[in-house]
Amino acid sequence: MRAADARSSIIREILKVTQRPEVISFAGGLPSPATFPVDALREAFGAVLQAAGPAALQYSATEGDDALRAWVAARETAKGIPTSPEQVLIVAGSQQGLDLIGKALIDTGSTVLVESPTYLGALQAFALFQPKFRELPIDAEGLQPAAIDAAAARDARFAYVMPNFQNPTGRTLSRERRAALADKARALDLWLVEDDPYGELWYRQAPPPGLRLFAPERTIRLGSFSKILSPGLRLGFVIAPQAFIDVLVRLKQATDLHTSTLAQRAAAHVVTSGLLESHLPQIRARYAAQCEVMLEALRANFPREARWTQPDGGMFVWVELPAGVDATRLLDAAIARNVAFVPGAAFYANAPRANTLRLSFVTVPPERIRAGVAILGELLRERVADAVKA
Amino acid sequence: MRAADARSSIIREILKVTQRPEVISFAGGLPSPATFPVDALREAFGAVLQAAGPAALQYSATEGDDALRAWVAARETAKGIPTSPEQVLIVAGSQQGLDLIGKALIDTGSTVLVESPTYLGALQAFALFQPKFRELPIDAEGLQPAAIDAAAARDARFAYVMPNFQNPTGRTLSRERRAALADKARALDLWLVEDDPYGELWYRQAPPPGLRLFAPERTIRLGSFSKILSPGLRLGFVIAPQAFIDVLVRLKQATDLHTSTLAQRAAAHVVTSGLLESHLPQIRARYAAQCEVMLEALRANFPREARWTQPDGGMFVWVELPAGVDATRLLDAAIARNVAFVPGAAFYANAPRANTLRLSFVTVPPERIRAGVAILGELLRERVADAVKA
Repeated sequence: MRAADARSSIIREILKVTQRPEVISFAGGLPSPATFPVDALREAFGAVLQAAGPAALQYSATEGDDALRAWVAARETAKGIPTSPEQVLIVAGSQQGLDLIGKALIDTGSTVLVESPTYLGALQAFALFQPKFRELPIDAEGLQPAAIDAAAARDARFAYVMPNFQNPTGRTLSRERRAALADKARALDLWLVEDDPYGELWYRQAPPPGLRLFAPERTIRLGSFSKILSPGLRLGFVIAPQAFIDVLVRLKQATDLHTSTLAQRAAAHVVTSGLLESHLPQIRARYAAQCEVMLEALRANFPREARWTQPDGGMFVWVELPAGVDATRLLDAAIARNVAFVPGAAFYANAPRANTLRLSFVTVPPERIRAGVAILGELLRERVADAVKA
Repeated sequence: MRAADARSSIIREILKVTQRPEVISFAGGLPSPATFPVDALREAFGAVLQAAGPAALQYSATEGDDALRAWVAARETAKGIPTSPEQVLIVAGSQQGLDLIGKALIDTGSTVLVESPTYLGALQAFALFQPKFRELPIDAEGLQPAAIDAAAARDARFAYVMPNFQNPTGRTLSRERRAALADKARALDLWLVEDDPYGELWYRQAPPPGLRLFAPERTIRLGSFSKILSPGLRLGFVIAPQAFIDVLVRLKQATDLHTSTLAQRAAAHVVTSGLLESHLPQIRARYAAQCEVMLEALRANFPREARWTQPDGGMFVWVELPAGVDATRLLDAAIARNVAFVPGAAFYANAPRANTLRLSFVTVPPERIRAGVAILGELLRERVADAVKA
C-alpha cells in the first residue's frame, strides 16, 4: 500500500498547485463542467420530490432503483448484449464497484492482473485488500492478450481492463483483441473486470462492442454516470452474471446499505426522458474538438523525439518522452512556469516508466491548451538537447 | 461471514413478508417518512443547483463539503465537546463509516469488542474484514465497563458501542459508565467507536454527553443525517482525532472517491437555515408518542413473564420472553396472523439468545400498534402456558 499512498500524495500535491487560477492544468481527471445538464437535473430533483415525496427520501433496496436498473439493462441490450435488470447493481460511482469487486475476489497475497499503465484509482481500491499486482503490456491496440499465459494468470482471479479510451493512455482495445481476451479468460478461468467510464465519449464512431459480447459469463462490467450526467451525483453501475450480482449486493449492503434513493430517481427521470440523445452528441463534439486542439499543439511544439497517442475518444493523451527525460523533473520546471500535468509513473502498479506523462484536455480552453503545450514543448526541447549531449 | 449471511437472509425474508400491506410490521428499522422535510429539501436542491450550477455536480474533496463539516463541528462544539472541521469526515451514511473503520483497524483474526446484543449492520460491515467478535454484556444501564478487562481486550483495537437508545435494545449508557468506559479505553489502549444515529431522538431530555467528552483522543464518533433529515440521501459523518481522519480520508478516496457533492450542499443548505430547531422537536414528540402507545399495548397484552425495555428515545423496544419461548417460532405464528418483528437472535455476534425480540414502533399507526401487540400477546400467552406445562 505504500506505493499507492506515495502516488496518491503526488497527485494531491499536484492538485493543490492546480487550484491556483494562473496555472494551466493538464493534470485533472475531471469532466468538463460545461457538459453537466444543470437545468435538466434541477427539474428532475424537483419533479421526483414533488411526485414521490417521502418515498424518494426513504431507505431503499441495495440492488438499486428499479427504473434505473431497467434503463441500464435496456441500453446494454440495445447495444447487442442481452441484459436483464437483475444483472445490474447500482453503485455510488464506479469506484465503489472496484471496492466491492476487491472485497469479493481478492484474498491477501492473491494476484490481480492490470494493464501497464492503468487507472490509479483501481490500484488504490484493490490495494486495500493487499493483492500482488502483475502488469500486462499494452501497445497501440491496447492490452496484448498473448501476454496472458498460464504463468501470468497464476493465483489470479481476474484481469482489470479499461478497453475504451483508457485512463491514462487514451488507447482502445481492438475488436480482435477483445475476442482473444475472452478466449484467454475462458481458457485460464479468469474474470474480466471491464471498467468503461469513457465508452460513450467517442469522437467519430462508437468503440468495438464490450467484453460481455464475447464472454458474458465471466465479464464484470463497470459503467458510470459521471461522464455523461455528473460525477458529483456519485452514480455508477455493475453488470455481471446474476449470481455474482447477488454476491455484490450482500457486500454492498454491509458497505453502505444502498445508493442514494433520491439521486437514483432523479437520474432515472433524466435518462428515461431521452435527454442523452441530444446531450451525448454535444459532449462528444466538444471533447473531439478539445482533443484536436491538443494534438495540433503537440505536433506544433513537441520535439520529434517525443511520441503520443491519438485517442478516438475520452479525456486523455499519453506522451512518451525520450528515454533520458524524467517527467517528474519536467513537472517541477513546468510548475515554475504555471503548467501542470501528471507524470506517468503514478499509473504503473510495479515498474514505473519515468519518461511518460498524461495530459488531460477537456477542461482547458483552447488558447490555454496552446499556451501550456508551447511552454511544455520549450522545456522539453531543452531537456532533449541535454539528453542527447549526455 | 456465514453467520452474518444467515442473519441477513432471515431479515431479508422478514422484509419480503412485511411488504404485504395487510401485515402489521414491527420488523423494520426505518424512520417515519412523516418526519422527512420534503419541502425544505426540494427547496434546497433547487437553490443549490440554481446558485452553484455545475460546481454542485462536479467531483469534490474526499473530506467533504466545507460548510457541512463546519456545521457538524459547530454542533458538536455547542454540546460542550470542542471540535474543528478538520476532525470531521463526511461519509455516505454512517454505515460507510463502519466500513472505513473496519478497513483501518481490523486485521484478519483480530478481535472486535461488541455489545451483546448489538447492531446487525455493524456485525456485517466488520465481518467483511474477518475479525473475531467478543461479546460484552449489557444491562439496564447499557454496556458494563467492568467486563472489559485485559483478557477481554486481548488482540482488540476497538470496542463498538451504541450509547444512545441502542439498536436493538433501546437502552442508554449511563453517564457514570461513559466515564468508566473512557478510563478502560485508556488503560487498555482501545479505540472507542461510538455509533450514534439516534442521539437526537430523545423523548424528554437529551442523553448524557458523548464519549468524546471523556476520551476525545481515542473516540471515533459516527453520526447520521438519516434520522434527522432523510436516510435516502445517504449522508453521515465521522468525528475523530485529525490524524485518524487523515487515515480514513485516504481509505475513503480508494473506496468511493467522495460523498455526493450535491447531496452535501443541499443538506448544508437545510441545516444551516436553522430548520432543525423546529424540525427535531416534532420528530421527538412523534416518536415519544409512538413509544408510549407501544409500551401501553405491551403492558395491556403481554404476559407478566415477559420483560421489556423502557426507551428514553429512539425507535426500538427490546423484549425478553420467558426462557422456554423461542422468538423465531413465535414469528412463524405471528406471520400467519399478519404480524412481524425481528427475532433477537439476529443481533448477537456469537451466542444468540432465542427468547428475545425487537419491536420497531415509529412507522406503525397507533391503532395498528395496539392490534399487532394484542395478537402477539395472545400468541405469547399460549406459549407461556405451554412452557410452564412442559
